[in-house]
Amino acid sequence: LINRSEKILNVKSININEKLTKFTEHWSPKVIAEMNDYQFKLVKVQGEFVWHDHKETDEVFIVIEGKMVIKFRDGEVNLGKGEMFVVPKGVEHKPYAEKECHIMLVEPKGVVNTGNAEGELTAENDVWI
Amino acid sequence: LINRSEKILNVKSININEKLTKFTEHWSPKVIAEMNDYQFKLVKVQGEFVWHDHKETDEVFIVIEGKMVIKFRDGEVNLGKGEMFVVPKGVEHKPYAEKECHIMLVEPKGVVNTGNAEGELTAENDVWI
Repeated sequence: LINRSEKILNVKSININEKLTKFTEHWSPKVIAEMNDYQFKLVKVQGEFVWHDHKETDEVFIVIEGKMVIKFRDGEVNLGKGEMFVVPKGVEHKPYAEKECHIMLVEPKGVVNTGNAEGELTAENDVWI
Repeated sequence: LINRSEKILNVKSININEKLTKFTEHWSPKVIAEMNDYQFKLVKVQGEFVWHDHKETDEVFIVIEGKMVIKFRDGEVNLGKGEMFVVPKGVEHKPYAEKECHIMLVEPKGVVNTGNAEGELTAENDVWI
């Protein structure tokens, strides 16, 4: 019975804080779950990211710990623990965190962290922890 | 400048705990955000739900506060605060919480809470708070 469950379902919860202990790098999304063709990714952020957009999809930010700002060309949104925001597709944004901040992203599988602005901060995609 | 941002982006964060103060009913999902054709819904659960499945989609449970169990025909998963689980599409499940538990669901827009088991516990869909 247990074997069958584990084969079909992997009946183990995913503990977000426990997953956050598994890496230290900044701006390097780690996948913790997949729902249909979407992924849930944890990211530790600090400092300034690059301006970029995702032409093909909205992107959800959920702050797990700390504070961050998502800058837009004509405004910004401040996010604290337990707050979330949906960046609409095609809208340029630049994440920023003064101190280290832990976030969860939700977006379709295959989305590159730097969107249209590939460069130094482009992280390897689809890395599971 | 601010007007333009608000029109385009609604540059206000979504505060999960603040949204949870806006309703008291059990088993009645409230939408707080939309990403592409997916929705983020808050639900307060207590007691036994009905056995059901969602033939067309996976469903994500994230526990915000409290504890719950997702029962399967051949096992179960226990979820505490900060834990999540992806119920695969087509898999029968029965959520249960001994005490009130606050969760966030992520699933495609239009998914009915009772899936294939429409009845007393079927909630109105697409209710935003």
